[in-house]
Amino acid sequence: MKKIINVGMLGIGNIGRGTYQALEMNRQKISETTGFDIEIVKILNRHPDKDRGIYIPKEKYTTDPMEILTDPEIDIVVELIGGIEPATEYMATALANGKSVVTANKAAIAANGKRLAALAQENHVLLRFEAAVAGGIPILTSLTTALLSNRFTEVHGILNGTTNYILTQMGEYGKDYAEVLKDAQAKGFAEADPTADVGGFDAANKLSILISTIFGTDAAPEDIPTQGITSVGKEDIAFANGSGYRIKLLASAREMGGKIYGGVEPALVPVTHPLASVSNEFNAVFVRGNAVDDLMFYGRGAGPLPTGSAVLGDVIGVARKLEKDSAYDIVPQLRYDSGLTFVGEGANKYYIRMMVVEKPGVLGKITTIFGRHGISIESVQQKAPYEVNGEIVAPLIFIVFKVEKNVLLGALDEIYKEDVIKSIDNIMRVAE
Amino acid sequence: MKKIINVGMLGIGNIGRGTYQALEMNRQKISETTGFDIEIVKILNRHPDKDRGIYIPKEKYTTDPMEILTDPEIDIVVELIGGIEPATEYMATALANGKSVVTANKAAIAANGKRLAALAQENHVLLRFEAAVAGGIPILTSLTTALLSNRFTEVHGILNGTTNYILTQMGEYGKDYAEVLKDAQAKGFAEADPTADVGGFDAANKLSILISTIFGTDAAPEDIPTQGITSVGKEDIAFANGSGYRIKLLASAREMGGKIYGGVEPALVPVTHPLASVSNEFNAVFVRGNAVDDLMFYGRGAGPLPTGSAVLGDVIGVARKLEKDSAYDIVPQLRYDSGLTFVGEGANKYYIRMMVVEKPGVLGKITTIFGRHGISIESVQQKAPYEVNGEIVAPLIFIVFKVEKNVLLGALDEIYKEDVIKSIDNIMRVAE
Repeated sequence: MKKIINVGMLGIGNIGRGTYQALEMNRQKISETTGFDIEIVKILNRHPDKDRGIYIPKEKYTTDPMEILTDPEIDIVVELIGGIEPATEYMATALANGKSVVTANKAAIAANGKRLAALAQENHVLLRFEAAVAGGIPILTSLTTALLSNRFTEVHGILNGTTNYILTQMGEYGKDYAEVLKDAQAKGFAEADPTADVGGFDAANKLSILISTIFGTDAAPEDIPTQGITSVGKEDIAFANGSGYRIKLLASAREMGGKIYGGVEPALVPVTHPLASVSNEFNAVFVRGNAVDDLMFYGRGAGPLPTGSAVLGDVIGVARKLEKDSAYDIVPQLRYDSGLTFVGEGANKYYIRMMVVEKPGVLGKITTIFGRHGISIESVQQKAPYEVNGEIVAPLIFIVFKVEKNVLLGALDEIYKEDVIKSIDNIMRVAE
Repeated sequence: MKKIINVGMLGIGNIGRGTYQALEMNRQKISETTGFDIEIVKILNRHPDKDRGIYIPKEKYTTDPMEILTDPEIDIVVELIGGIEPATEYMATALANGKSVVTANKAAIAANGKRLAALAQENHVLLRFEAAVAGGIPILTSLTTALLSNRFTEVHGILNGTTNYILTQMGEYGKDYAEVLKDAQAKGFAEADPTADVGGFDAANKLSILISTIFGTDAAPEDIPTQGITSVGKEDIAFANGSGYRIKLLASAREMGGKIYGGVEPALVPVTHPLASVSNEFNAVFVRGNAVDDLMFYGRGAGPLPTGSAVLGDVIGVARKLEKDSAYDIVPQLRYDSGLTFVGEGANKYYIRMMVVEKPGVLGKITTIFGRHGISIESVQQKAPYEVNGEIVAPLIFIVFKVEKNVLLGALDEIYKEDVIKSIDNIMRVAE
């Protein structure tokens, strides 16, 4: 008889359903290939009478998390309720009770991964969270197995499908941000409250996990410089399209001299870079290793079945270790002991769009201030002037050479004080 | 004291040097992360006095393979001499002697993987060959770990860097095949005898391994319909560029109704497909799973360090299993027991370029023959006519709807018998 791995699942929302369904679809292949059967035996469901859109025997449901977290028959707890609490508390209880944990919860892992990973090691069990970063894309598994022999120098991710969908639609159809957001909400690609996505916070959680996995150091989401896409306008899209760039919300980090620099922000990506062709709701992670060189993973970063695929991959991975009764000495994916320190964004090339009064001497004023702050200008473009409230104004677009962002912001503060500057509308990193 | 994993290496050519060098570069990280040290203790080197371009202590060298294959101190044998024999014989001897084997040898695995995998299972050791398919890209590891919960319906690979470099250069600079090949040879991107690459045979070996990994069935390289890139001309490139396609040498397979269809051939890939932007010497593998949906892996398919990265990844994977003394029940990557059968290419959309005499009625003759063979035409384009030996000729480009290739070739045989047909110059699959 085949060994059966008993799984208890917390939550039966979209990802819970996708995980359940992916297991039903592929039960036979998994069983034939691995030599064991996976059974989801209990599911925490606060509303057992709500229609979940798939058939699940009622007797699997419980409204009491402790029935799963303390059940001695359950080998693996899969946490899919999302949010930081009570998810973290539930995972901690499961680990303390000697159960391995698989989760798709980026917020909880970014906030409490260090504590949970330590708890897993103490209790000789595993904590896995492939689904928390880039959905179905097997980036964490690859980095910690087949690619382990590399030291990585940089990572750049398109880690949020909602913002990538919005930016792609803006780029392809010349539509404005607000218009595309409304359309994305109507199609279910964006939440009614889109803040976590369009503000870059979702991507910052994922980048925090990637930084720990790749560089072995702490970068709390709140310490990661994060800028969303709400200031990206038609004019920026037009400039990018006309200058050989695509605009992407990039979550990036790189190592230089023992320090880790990085952040989340919209960036101009050269069309020749493989990340530039990652369109619509797709995600991608680009890494550069000192042996493997450039590598990119592309796929679906969200959705019930793709995320369920990653959750099940982790469940199978944990089950294989359980089979060997040797889970305790498997290397954890998160590391915080490399001695590298996360220090924020570092110096980058930047794109700045501002609105100025169209008269002689304006450009001279701006470039003088940039110069005083030690900022060199690579290019400047003035767009066609037009009239607003009886005044002739024109958009100016600068690209400046590498500069620390706080230095740039200092210069822009001073520039903005000039009467002839109407507004500073957008700042984006230029990726190289 | 840390556990030491002793490795014996067969061969110290490009990939051997890359593997040795990647280990030297990243020894500390590997050791910190895994808890064990990897030592390459012996190297088979038929010409120990030849300068290998890196420092390796002479005492590691041996000219006798048996010194490695039978050394009880050696845990893992890494085979990097290439070619089918004596590589297969050496690997078989190592496995029979209870040593796990890691190889980058696509020809030997495609030819003898079934026998070697069985031998590994009998002897409770591991056989790994991530480096044999797409160099540094962790495709086999991902398919057999994080993605294991999927049934895959199709795979499309750009698996040969030389041909992709040639096709990219032809596409970007409008150069002819022969010209670009010469340039690639001068730059070291193509061998003096480029047959294995440009003929598609290298890609067919890799596709054979992918088919076994993904679909669990046999597809011997000699049974895989294989067409190289030598017939791709300037005219084809111009048509593709003008019609929203890129030409790629695709190694493809798909499952339909319990049968596996596939082959290696130049194909027109829509520019919107992620494979279209894979340029120059880069490789990529695109798969579609029933849970994860579309997924693409992009990176360097060749080169000493990228390939060395994959070899070391496998060595670390095997070492982790050895540490647990549980190697015997790890699932092998190659499978042949799925009950699916490889049956060749199946029906595809095709592109055909031919040269015809420019006179009324020619198109009627051709389309009548196509019609008699049940072949429907999607489009036809006549290019500008010109004079050859006093005769006015013109290239004709057809795209025909889905048809079995042998049916198409039957029709073209008949078409070619018409006096007005000067030559049939190229046939390519149109990818959808």
